[in-house]
Order: sequence, then C-alpha cells, then structure tokens
Amino acid sequence: MTQNFIHTYVSVDCVVFGFDHENRLNILLVQRHIDVPERQKRLPGSLIFSNEDVDDAAERVLHELTGIKKMVQKQFRCFADPLRASNEHDIKWMEKEYKQQIDRIMTVAYLSLCKIDHKINSTKYDTVDWCPIDEIPSLPFDHNKIINESLIEIRRWIETDFSIIFELLPKKFTIRQLYQLYGALSEKYIDIKNFHKKISSFNYIVALDEIEKNVSHRAARYYKFDAKIYKKNNTKLIK
Amino acid sequence: MTQNFIHTYVSVDCVVFGFDHENRLNILLVQRHIDVPERQKRLPGSLIFSNEDVDDAAERVLHELTGIKKMVQKQFRCFADPLRASNEHDIKWMEKEYKQQIDRIMTVAYLSLCKIDHKINSTKYDTVDWCPIDEIPSLPFDHNKIINESLIEIRRWIETDFSIIFELLPKKFTIRQLYQLYGALSEKYIDIKNFHKKISSFNYIVALDEIEKNVSHRAARYYKFDAKIYKKNNTKLIK
Repeated sequence: MTQNFIHTYVSVDCVVFGFDHENRLNILLVQRHIDVPERQKRLPGSLIFSNEDVDDAAERVLHELTGIKKMVQKQFRCFADPLRASNEHDIKWMEKEYKQQIDRIMTVAYLSLCKIDHKINSTKYDTVDWCPIDEIPSLPFDHNKIINESLIEIRRWIETDFSIIFELLPKKFTIRQLYQLYGALSEKYIDIKNFHKKISSFNYIVALDEIEKNVSHRAARYYKFDAKIYKKNNTKLIK
Repeated sequence: MTQNFIHTYVSVDCVVFGFDHENRLNILLVQRHIDVPERQKRLPGSLIFSNEDVDDAAERVLHELTGIKKMVQKQFRCFADPLRASNEHDIKWMEKEYKQQIDRIMTVAYLSLCKIDHKINSTKYDTVDWCPIDEIPSLPFDHNKIINESLIEIRRWIETDFSIIFELLPKKFTIRQLYQLYGALSEKYIDIKNFHKKISSFNYIVALDEIEKNVSHRAARYYKFDAKIYKKNNTKLIK
C-alpha cells in the first residue's frame, strides 16, 4: 500500500516588528485585493518558487511586498496545520493570486525588527502599513496565530541577546522609550525605578551629552547603545 | 504566465542529543537498508502524511524509528535547499522507501535532549545507536549540516535556559560531569577552577550527602539540579 504522503505548496510569511512614536509595538501588514473587507489585511507572504531556498524566498518576498531590502530575518517556525488554508475566501483568493488549485499550504514564518521610519513601499499591494499590536484585526489563514507565536519568539530572542531590542529604537533614545519598549515586549511588569537602576548597571547603554527638545514634560537625556562594549561582555554561555 | 511554485514532499528529521558515560556528546543515528555502506547511517526522519501537522509527525517518526515516546522536541529549522536530495543513492533509496518519485524534499528539523540510558528500540531499522559527535560519519542528504546547525541551536537554547543542560545528565552528577558537558557544548574554553566558582554561586545546583563509589580517582561529591529554585530565580527578561 502506498501511504498518503504530504505533497504541498510552501510559502513564507514575514512578521516585521516596529516601535512607533507613541511607544507602541507595531507589525507590518499588507492589504490584498479581495472582496471580503474583513479579510483584506494579512502578513506579507507568498509562495516560494520551485528552485528557491526558503531563506532566499523570505528575502525576495519581503522586498517585493514592502520594499524592505537586506533586513536580517530570523526563521522561527514552520506552520503546517492541515486546515490552516481551508477558509473558502482564502482558497478563492489563492486560486486568483497564484493561478493554481491549492489544497494545502505550509508556511515558514520569519521574524524581523525594523526601525519605524524605514522607507516602506510596494508595487504589488495598494497598502502596506504598520498596525499597532493591540489593534491587529482578525487575519486570514493562521496569521493571528503566527503573530502570537512571534511575540513568544521575540521574547526568547531578547533573553538570549538583549542587544536586539535596540534594533527597534532610534539611534538615540530616552530611558523611558527603552522602558516602554521593554514593557511592550515583556510579560512581566517592572517598576520604572527598578528599571532605571538595572539599566544604569549596563555599561553598554551610554549617556549622550544631549537632552530632548520641545517636549511638554521635563526633557530627558538621550542614550545610545554601544554594540562593541555589549559584545565584549556578553559572549559567555553562563552569564 | 503561471509561475513555477514549489510543490514538494516534506519530512521531519530528529536530532537527539545524549551525553555518554565517557563524558562525550552523542547523537542518535539509525541505519537504513541501502547497498552503499558509507551512506547507511542517517538521522531518524521520515515523510509526513498528508493529513498530519509537522509537530505530530516529529513525535510519530521519533517513536516509530527509535521507540522514544513523549520526548520534548524543539522545532529549530526548516531545510529547503533545492539540491539537498539530489544525490543518486538518496533518490534511489527514497523511491524504494516511499514508493514515490521524489523530485524535491524539504525537511523540518527537531532537537531533543535524552538521557543516554533511555531505552531505545526500533521495529523499522536494524540498528539505532548513539554516535559520539566527533565520530559522526558523512551522512546522506544534508544531515551533517543539520547536525552542525543543531549544535548552534543547542548553545542558544542553553543561553536562554541553562536548566536544559540537566536533561542530558543523570539525576545525580558530579561537577566534573557538568564541566565536561558544558565544555562539549560551549565553544569557549573555561578553566575548571573558574567553573567551580561560578557553579557554586548557583543555588539551584544542590550538593547531596553522597560521594562517588568505586572510582580510581578521588571520589567526588554528587549534586542534583533543583528545578523549583531555578524557576524562581530565572523568569526575568533582563538577567
């Protein structure tokens, strides 16, 4: 008896995080052409080609769909629920988009961190825009699940390598910005005073000779992240 | 024009680590039936079924091929090089094994940590056995690459969660065993005196009232890992 092995299409989906000027975590969504308004927004993603490796596909697709080039993307999970593409609207859209009858589709999800002011554009979709994480609508396929998993992954990533948090901040930032970002990423509440104390023990967060301008509250000092100092201190397996 | 999208078989491959009585890191390999002797050994792996999710497939395949049940397996990477299954011996073997003409095959790799005394058996393959990491032969497909990547992944995993190192040790262990295991996993050399000092600052590594018996060197004290104490101290994003 021949067993019924999977023979499937494979896509990549890209979860791109940004941190906006109101100190909120955002995710980049594209808007696809589909008649059902509530299923228009989705993660940037597409099928990979028959001669393409999956990391190359992630790079190509992110560029094609958002204009972002040369971004470090971390592959974090393969999503392969047999029913993940079984919604009738999604099936119709895939037929139109890919000119193929698609019965099942696996996806490999990627995670990346982007400065919110990065130039975004797209030739393929009308709209590519940031969406605050608290306002993410119901998305097609299992894209909501992918985003939830990506949040767990980004937390793990920061635990392994705290320096990646600075990818989301402007080059000069205030401790309040870092605190808000940390709060948006962490599941645990941390008191701002304790946070200040902790942060001041990190010699790779360097105070600049510059404070905020034109702000209604007391102007705060700017800091920068020093990657060299960080690297020197954080290369051991046991911390 | 219809673009040429991937339509592929997908497998899972399981990298199972063990730590032997000679203090060496090992990986579990199975031996497949193939006439070319130097391509017989491989990672435990198989195609997933058409109605199967990938994590379920990893659990099934590991059980079918090694007898190991209910092991935590961490999905760590999808390998999708278009040429990863292009060796003629591998193609012939796949045709015989799966009764399918297989043009391309993607694999999702899993990582797990196993006590070396865990019962291993297999109905499918003649031989399932541990192989010291320094003695791993040239393997079929990209299995050598998968093992190399899994070593990088296990290091990252230990950085995030040092407690997982104890999955590889017996319930009671000596500091020398922990040191040897740490040395096998780490890329950096650490002096045993410094290691002792570091370890003694970890309150979750608890000295037992018991020492080694029947050893030719000076009998060392046994220790155990206390998961509760570890968990209490290690739940913060910033350490």
